[in-house]
Amino acid sequence: MSKATKQLADLFHEGLKDIYFAEKKIVTALPKMAKAAGSEDLAAAFKKHINETEEQVTRLEIVFELIDQKPHGRNCPGIMGLLDEGQEVTKEYKNSPALDAGLIAAAQAVEHYEISRYGTLMVWAQQLGMTEAATLLHRTLQEEVKAHALLTQLAEKALNREPQMA
Amino acid sequence: MSKATKQLADLFHEGLKDIYFAEKKIVTALPKMAKAAGSEDLAAAFKKHINETEEQVTRLEIVFELIDQKPHGRNCPGIMGLLDEGQEVTKEYKNSPALDAGLIAAAQAVEHYEISRYGTLMVWAQQLGMTEAATLLHRTLQEEVKAHALLTQLAEKALNREPQMA
Repeated sequence: MSKATKQLADLFHEGLKDIYFAEKKIVTALPKMAKAAGSEDLAAAFKKHINETEEQVTRLEIVFELIDQKPHGRNCPGIMGLLDEGQEVTKEYKNSPALDAGLIAAAQAVEHYEISRYGTLMVWAQQLGMTEAATLLHRTLQEEVKAHALLTQLAEKALNREPQMA
Repeated sequence: MSKATKQLADLFHEGLKDIYFAEKKIVTALPKMAKAAGSEDLAAAFKKHINETEEQVTRLEIVFELIDQKPHGRNCPGIMGLLDEGQEVTKEYKNSPALDAGLIAAAQAVEHYEISRYGTLMVWAQQLGMTEAATLLHRTLQEEVKAHALLTQLAEKALNREPQMA
């Protein structure tokens, strides 16, 4: 049985499944990271991002509708590996002055993953002539860039709080 | 037996192991991606990045020396997941006009991973007072940002080459 050659629309649909899977996992991971955070500022940043992430999931569901597909995730080992790092740091750096630095690094790797995904999907949506989808994806991309910038600020603050040993 | 509380220097050493592992895997993955690429431009970009990545590995080995450690990688499931995506796209989109778009997306996710890692390590090196290490990490970070920008250019070119079905 011959298989039709896959097109950009297939790449778009598969990419959507990947990030949908990722966002759902991130919604579950963020409360744990907020609980683990050493500083109130960092806990608040993670909590704020839970609400944002829930809205991003809803936006993705709208994009699935726009391509006449049901929202489904596809197991994405990349994001699972990155999220596991957050859990590992939480365990290994409990009570350490470097805990927040480690949590922020893990969260920033996740943000970079999302920025990469949304950037790609937005460009593909434009190319496929899906203006509404591109606008929704762009909105989320901007939120992720802001979340990343906030983490960078908190990283500097976390490092300045405790004198570290060289 | 009690365990000394881990410090920022430990985070730095562990992060270095992660990216060292990742770079070694990337050196192996890039020739396959160059071979799979549909356009000569993309193949050339991947080939150019092989040499750059080999230099980045050498730079990391110098940083290991600077902290009196032997260069060792630490298995990092996040990067393995991202690299596997490149292989999957190569297989599933063989002969598709969307192959290069898929390869570029996979490569950009890897670049984002590296940008995140080097950005974090550079800031930690500064905080730990390791000026030489910070300079080396900054040089690699700049190369990764440039490699990402080149991929973005090629993505636009790849998408404009073939009219795509919406």
